[in-house]
Amino acid sequence: MTHEKGCCDSICQCFFEYFTPKVLVIRSKKVGTINRLTQALVIAYVIGYVCVLKKGYQDTDTVLSSVTAKVKGIALTNTSDLGLRIWDAADYVIPPQGENSFFVLTNLIVTLNQTQTTCAEKPSQASICSSDKDCKKGFRYTQGNGVQTGRCVNFSESVKTCEVLAWCPLENATEPPNPPMLADAENFTVLIKNSVRYPKFNFNKRNILPHINSSYLSQCVFNRKTDPDCPIFRLKDIVEEAQEDFQTMAVHGGVMGVHIRWDCDLDMPKSWCVPKYAFRRLDNKDPDHNVAPGYNFRFAKYYKNGDGEETRTLIKGYGIRFDVMVFGQAGKFNIVPTLLNVGAGLALLGLVSVVCDWIVLTCMTKRNLYKEQKYSYVDDFGLLSDDGIP
Amino acid sequence: MTHEKGCCDSICQCFFEYFTPKVLVIRSKKVGTINRLTQALVIAYVIGYVCVLKKGYQDTDTVLSSVTAKVKGIALTNTSDLGLRIWDAADYVIPPQGENSFFVLTNLIVTLNQTQTTCAEKPSQASICSSDKDCKKGFRYTQGNGVQTGRCVNFSESVKTCEVLAWCPLENATEPPNPPMLADAENFTVLIKNSVRYPKFNFNKRNILPHINSSYLSQCVFNRKTDPDCPIFRLKDIVEEAQEDFQTMAVHGGVMGVHIRWDCDLDMPKSWCVPKYAFRRLDNKDPDHNVAPGYNFRFAKYYKNGDGEETRTLIKGYGIRFDVMVFGQAGKFNIVPTLLNVGAGLALLGLVSVVCDWIVLTCMTKRNLYKEQKYSYVDDFGLLSDDGIP
Amino acid sequence: MTHEKGCCDSICQCFFEYFTPKVLVIRSKKVGTINRLTQALVIAYVIGYVCVLKKGYQDTDTVLSSVTAKVKGIALTNTSDLGLRIWDAADYVIPPQGENSFFVLTNLIVTLNQTQTTCAEKPSQASICSSDKDCKKGFRYTQGNGVQTGRCVNFSESVKTCEVLAWCPLENATEPPNPPMLADAENFTVLIKNSVRYPKFNFNKRNILPHINSSYLSQCVFNRKTDPDCPIFRLKDIVEEAQEDFQTMAVHGGVMGVHIRWDCDLDMPKSWCVPKYAFRRLDNKDPDHNVAPGYNFRFAKYYKNGDGEETRTLIKGYGIRFDVMVFGQAGKFNIVPTLLNVGAGLALLGLVSVVCDWIVLTCMTKRNLYKEQKYSYVDDFGLLSDDGIP
Repeated sequence: MTHEKGCCDSICQCFFEYFTPKVLVIRSKKVGTINRLTQALVIAYVIGYVCVLKKGYQDTDTVLSSVTAKVKGIALTNTSDLGLRIWDAADYVIPPQGENSFFVLTNLIVTLNQTQTTCAEKPSQASICSSDKDCKKGFRYTQGNGVQTGRCVNFSESVKTCEVLAWCPLENATEPPNPPMLADAENFTVLIKNSVRYPKFNFNKRNILPHINSSYLSQCVFNRKTDPDCPIFRLKDIVEEAQEDFQTMAVHGGVMGVHIRWDCDLDMPKSWCVPKYAFRRLDNKDPDHNVAPGYNFRFAKYYKNGDGEETRTLIKGYGIRFDVMVFGQAGKFNIVPTLLNVGAGLALLGLVSVVCDWIVLTCMTKRNLYKEQKYSYVDDFGLLSDDGIP
Repeated sequence: MTHEKGCCDSICQCFFEYFTPKVLVIRSKKVGTINRLTQALVIAYVIGYVCVLKKGYQDTDTVLSSVTAKVKGIALTNTSDLGLRIWDAADYVIPPQGENSFFVLTNLIVTLNQTQTTCAEKPSQASICSSDKDCKKGFRYTQGNGVQTGRCVNFSESVKTCEVLAWCPLENATEPPNPPMLADAENFTVLIKNSVRYPKFNFNKRNILPHINSSYLSQCVFNRKTDPDCPIFRLKDIVEEAQEDFQTMAVHGGVMGVHIRWDCDLDMPKSWCVPKYAFRRLDNKDPDHNVAPGYNFRFAKYYKNGDGEETRTLIKGYGIRFDVMVFGQAGKFNIVPTLLNVGAGLALLGLVSVVCDWIVLTCMTKRNLYKEQKYSYVDDFGLLSDDGIP
Repeated sequence: MTHEKGCCDSICQCFFEYFTPKVLVIRSKKVGTINRLTQALVIAYVIGYVCVLKKGYQDTDTVLSSVTAKVKGIALTNTSDLGLRIWDAADYVIPPQGENSFFVLTNLIVTLNQTQTTCAEKPSQASICSSDKDCKKGFRYTQGNGVQTGRCVNFSESVKTCEVLAWCPLENATEPPNPPMLADAENFTVLIKNSVRYPKFNFNKRNILPHINSSYLSQCVFNRKTDPDCPIFRLKDIVEEAQEDFQTMAVHGGVMGVHIRWDCDLDMPKSWCVPKYAFRRLDNKDPDHNVAPGYNFRFAKYYKNGDGEETRTLIKGYGIRFDVMVFGQAGKFNIVPTLLNVGAGLALLGLVSVVCDWIVLTCMTKRNLYKEQKYSYVDDFGLLSDDGIP
């Protein structure tokens, strides 16, 4: 024994000691087969699922993206209010530029020549009156259009409502025109420019692919079969790919998602990394719950007339907002995740022996022989059982 | 021995060999109890923390979201510049629509009838002059309002400043009105429509829950206790939930975060998946460091007068920007993460034996007996110590 | 043997049994050294890479951010159309506010006094005509500016094109002015206010650091060497840090990324957590593929003349959009990830023994001795080989 020797010696000896578990080798066709099959299963899973499907040997990075969109197209409307009128991109894209989304006006309710004056409030439970006593000066409520002056005036020949100080005349339509005023919007096209970057791999690419030239770009339109690389989309195609009808959607407006997916295996040639486009309606158009459907907002154009008085044209604009969402993940071989996944695979192999041990020690006919060989016993209770000690 | 046999035989035999570690079983009340308690602790941790709290048996997905917001309400202002004036959503929501945020004007400094002409610069170190020699034609500086013409003119009776070519008259107020001009904004309401999607589980939902009908939606206002499902929020309530005072915040403006959290356990009924709202002030209002507080920006309305000359109304608008942020994670049972977490739990059980081994071999009175039984020795140094070999 | 005793006894005994693998200790300088060196390597990797570099003992959280930007500066232009004209922030920032980005106009093509009327379409393959028969009433195409009236009119003395109903006169320039009209934009400054929050640690900070006071903020400009904490940036500096030339970029516009990185170790003092700024051009300016370069959009200002007829000024605006992206991760000591990483390190130590076992059993001269000691055999085939059984 070395216990008598000095501390230094003991550490030294300890340094050179190598601990390895003692192993019982069972030579059995049954157990061997079960063991090897289970091992094969685990290895197949690790290689198949982790390495091939999930590419566990790759380091990954998520995409940084920059999106710009430019809509083109002309619409013609003919209404009693506005007469024959042409709409171009400067008219129907509101606001003119955004970060990752653009809005195209498809329908509208126009109220011309509003000024700050008094007029009869629209009839509702809170505004119908029979005399001035029913109206309270200064009263206002959320659904109202202005502040009451305290007078009760004729709204129409049969109805009297409280007078309000407001932008008058009030907007009088409640439902948007159907068919939509800018029905021509279905033929508008949008050029979506998207640059992506994977900072970890210093990899840049954009959706105008290298083989696209100016002449192709000036006349192409995206088509999943014939022109899958063209970054110019017809609005009707976008909506129809999402299983929606453009003219129906145009009446009340809505929100469309334009998904651009950049899944790139950077161990492969750079040209294999191309964007995939998908389209989906984002707002809910559940027919059972048509509470507050569609998408609209009000905006105004302000003018001054000859007297310096301010007038405005109020527009309740219905339209489709396109939210461009860029996804994606790039992978490239890296030693750290490879080691991690190989390690995790080896750990799973450890589970195999748990299963096989259980089979060997409970199901096999010779289980007692195996037990005797595998287990040694040392007993703290006295000599209860000492047959297991070799 | 099989070494003399052919290679094929050897591989064949190897295939049927099953390796299992030899185990020493120590029957001891102390060690056994410590061992089982530690195991129970680890199993309780794995089940309690990983499975119940973290729901490790579920595959997870993060939320895709689409947000639209619509503000309603009327404000009345009465100033010497503008007279009695009504403000509606088209006036105070700027820009009229955005992707995930909306801005409500609460206070403003108006400068009417600006034209491109010359006027005296506002007094500052760089602009005060006594004669034309102090002013340099074409000179401009970042804090200035225009390009100097080289002349020194009267700003007021007592002060002379360099003349500038600018939008004149210059904005002359520096501090916003207090109380804020659109104090009424506290009663504005906003309808926030939010549709979410968990693409991995093909699960869609929106914050207008199925049980909400049109009549409820037309008159409800969110209240954490009485109306927690109503998607219409009073601006004052939003600000007060974030422990801020609306009228104070309205003076200089600010940025509010509207957090919508969708944490969904999709193993449970769909109706249990409901949004949770929270509100928080995002810009810093640290009283010690009130450098550049609040939120404001300048915008203009352009007019042409009778002569075709362009004039504008410059507005320095203070207000509250509401950033709607949608969070959330959905989980659903899946076999892959379940296996992973069970595996990780088993690996932790391996640590138990490390601890117990240490206790058995250093702290127990019979440690030398155990050591003798556990360790066998084979020595490369010669016959230094061979007592360990069985 | 205890097998004859009752079931309860057997369970009880099982409870107190502690299973520990039998271990063979090999005392060898070679094997010991290899073993300890490999262990040292793994431990160094775990401590060095996982704990120090990746801070595996910390729980992490990603940043929540709020950004506001305010541009300042004056530009002077002198053109035949507009005359001498001053541009301030209300003129060149479009839209006046946004969530995480701001746009600065640097170049423009102005078309004054457009009205809804008829004029000759711009010459192109689709619009050149020789007589009315070549034009089809109501025809429109994507690249066109209006709806054809069916008449063929003089575009210039030598060219006839189809007449269109459109906003006339049409925009006639195709290339933006070079040098850019708002060349002065390079001296504009922008104050970027950014508040961040790490919700898990209830940690808030903003990029106007505590030591910055009003007087410093009123005159500082960001400089990586002399003023790295100043949140006011000169546009030219931003563009030049991204290795671009401002005046070249200003002609056709572009998209710049302003990256603010907040990597915070919250185990350290709060004051060590400061933002790092980086700038990068996001749109691709690959000289080989200059298809659709730059960034521009059209917008209009609407006027009403004395007769109530609507006219507009169409502006094709080229400019630089600055996308502010806030990144970052905060870490703070937490016991759960610490345990996880220690566990993973121990699992890697298991791999060491696999390597050493292989060396011991195949490369060492005494490998047969070791094999004899390590392996015991039990044979299911009969008495094929029983020499391994002790």
